[in-house]
Amino acid sequence: MDVKEYMTKLGQAARVASAEMGSVSTQQKNEALMATAEILHESRALLAAENLKDLESGRKNGLDDAMLDRLELSSARIDSMIEGLKQVAALDDPIGAINDLKFMPSGIQVGKMRVPLGVIGIIYESRPNVTVEAASLCIKSGNATILRGGSEAIHSNRAIAACISAGLDRAGLSQSAVQVVETTDREAVGQMITMPEFVDVVVPRGGKGLIERISRDAKVTVIKHLDGICHVYIDKDADAEKAFNIAINAKTHRYGTCNTMETLLVEASRAEEVLPRLAQEYADISVELRGCERTMAILPSAVRAKEEDWETEYLAPILSIKVLSGLDEAIAHINKHGSHHTDSIVTENYTTGRAFLMRVDSSSVMINASTRFADGFEYGLGAEIGISTDKIHARGPVGLEGLTSEKYVVLGDGHIRT
Amino acid sequence: MDVKEYMTKLGQAARVASAEMGSVSTQQKNEALMATAEILHESRALLAAENLKDLESGRKNGLDDAMLDRLELSSARIDSMIEGLKQVAALDDPIGAINDLKFMPSGIQVGKMRVPLGVIGIIYESRPNVTVEAASLCIKSGNATILRGGSEAIHSNRAIAACISAGLDRAGLSQSAVQVVETTDREAVGQMITMPEFVDVVVPRGGKGLIERISRDAKVTVIKHLDGICHVYIDKDADAEKAFNIAINAKTHRYGTCNTMETLLVEASRAEEVLPRLAQEYADISVELRGCERTMAILPSAVRAKEEDWETEYLAPILSIKVLSGLDEAIAHINKHGSHHTDSIVTENYTTGRAFLMRVDSSSVMINASTRFADGFEYGLGAEIGISTDKIHARGPVGLEGLTSEKYVVLGDGHIRT
Repeated sequence: MDVKEYMTKLGQAARVASAEMGSVSTQQKNEALMATAEILHESRALLAAENLKDLESGRKNGLDDAMLDRLELSSARIDSMIEGLKQVAALDDPIGAINDLKFMPSGIQVGKMRVPLGVIGIIYESRPNVTVEAASLCIKSGNATILRGGSEAIHSNRAIAACISAGLDRAGLSQSAVQVVETTDREAVGQMITMPEFVDVVVPRGGKGLIERISRDAKVTVIKHLDGICHVYIDKDADAEKAFNIAINAKTHRYGTCNTMETLLVEASRAEEVLPRLAQEYADISVELRGCERTMAILPSAVRAKEEDWETEYLAPILSIKVLSGLDEAIAHINKHGSHHTDSIVTENYTTGRAFLMRVDSSSVMINASTRFADGFEYGLGAEIGISTDKIHARGPVGLEGLTSEKYVVLGDGHIRT
Repeated sequence: MDVKEYMTKLGQAARVASAEMGSVSTQQKNEALMATAEILHESRALLAAENLKDLESGRKNGLDDAMLDRLELSSARIDSMIEGLKQVAALDDPIGAINDLKFMPSGIQVGKMRVPLGVIGIIYESRPNVTVEAASLCIKSGNATILRGGSEAIHSNRAIAACISAGLDRAGLSQSAVQVVETTDREAVGQMITMPEFVDVVVPRGGKGLIERISRDAKVTVIKHLDGICHVYIDKDADAEKAFNIAINAKTHRYGTCNTMETLLVEASRAEEVLPRLAQEYADISVELRGCERTMAILPSAVRAKEEDWETEYLAPILSIKVLSGLDEAIAHINKHGSHHTDSIVTENYTTGRAFLMRVDSSSVMINASTRFADGFEYGLGAEIGISTDKIHARGPVGLEGLTSEKYVVLGDGHIRT
């Protein structure tokens, strides 16, 4: 069977399963999640053995340590997959919820009912635990899903897929509700993103190159974020202590996450007070500083920032710093150079904070909080399939609700339009 | 200047204007709408003269009467454009509204703020009054817009555009917030739908051919509906009087609208009771009936329906009728042959109605109400830019809210993540 034929078969099966998944009971969906958790636990030995195959061929193919680490299904990672399934089972079922049901002047009642999107394609790289995470969110939100993991994790993913299949079956649900692409042929991705008749939305998780390629070629909606170039702006009216804590936390809490600050903006009149203390702390934890001309005048040991520094997601202990004239310049800088991900102002001034919230065009806009809070769990979504920097359909951290849509429901009593 | 260069210029100006429009005050937006209303009133003579040019060349080019009627800017149509502007000014401003602001365990408050999409491209056919309708919704929702009307209405559209420009200017807003494409070159549409750097969403309004072409070629999100194949299902437990009234109203209230019923489904045990009376009434108002085999046994004078009748949007006094075994078959028929637009069940049975609401995969699902209610005004949206049969971003009647997105806002007090 060629790849196109194979993907079409998966797509058709997913479409059929999605029609069923849209109206199965909450109880059945939770049963499938809990059964999968049990089966994963019973299959620890098998999972380890299959994972070992991937690790061995990964080593043979020269994967670096970071890649091998992501690939590994340690006992702790299996624990956390099991815990994740239980957490998703405990979340409220979004499907079927009716909101805003109101009487209209004509006498009909009109409201909105939350419904699944249909079939969701998920494309990710080496981490096999994503298979369980993504599948659980799709099951709970009543969607069918087609999962395409990295080829280097194929044995692990197949073993996990078998557990999910068995879990679905135990709950009496169609095994086609979650399908893992079994071929490592890269053409499978090309097929998945160009069959809108079978796939409604694609969620790519991975490097910028992968996501750009998918966005360019996709014929279906892509829920994505390309990069996280996040800013903290220390305003004229900032509290110095809050500014210090937030600027340190936003940069150094974790370097490799998309909600990490990459550029610090400082209002000019506060720069001489704020920057030396920060620079000292950054130096102590070996964060490299790259500054604009005015920053350099205060921190001569910093590296002179180049134009591209303002648009670079370092994902590393590097920070660019710009001193500027005030709110307008800060907002202009963020909207021009940022990636519409997460940006925070530190200020005690009511009017300045209010203007920042309104005018910064990012998926998360904050006052006096670390950018590191931009996260589905911190926002109370209970889960997260990704963070969208687009404006269409879903924006910011995407939880269960981002995998749903709403239809109108109308209740009448024989009403006709006159 | 070639078309690509011209559209790029419009796109760049729209992008700049959209950054401004996103945070202008409600008062300024309303001022622009009310000023445009006044200027349209003052320009009645000019509008009539420019419209006459379109009508004359339309006649010369052999447009049919229906087309010429849509093209005409009668005094009553100008009245209704003016009235529409006042109505949109009276609507609540959706932008900046913050919803669901809640404290999280970490101490931060997280909520969602409604924001404009950015730049909206609208592509429509002959009716010049759409220019004002679309522009007013985009202004109120804080979006910039590029409008591309039919070439046969170019003089009317230019004259209307000049009024809108003057209205924006009088309110101190950028005239680039609403731009009408001044070239009739068809390549302008091709450009508009393939410049995601300048246009965020495209709303095509027109025939199925136009919308299919745009959906296929677009590189930006398209808010659209292709057709309205709407059903009424008369259930075993239907009230006969309600069934009669709804089946007549859904078909005959207006023939040319997308929410008009095209197929009537009847549960077999009720067919002999319900169909003859309906057939009599349909005959009196000259609706042609096309029936399945079981319908033909009851209504021998009907035409035998062909397979394609179940998937045809007649937009005419024609109705297809199918007699079937019950709820499951009705839902299967609707989900397979319908267009996910609007479908209604007539039943007194609680459980049957509840199942129909849950399982019919359409943008509007109704109980005991005429499909003709599927409309932004009837749903209390105050306005409507179209009806979406997609599931992504907007579904069903699209009002101001469909032209917006939400960003997260986070309020802290120096909070950092630990």
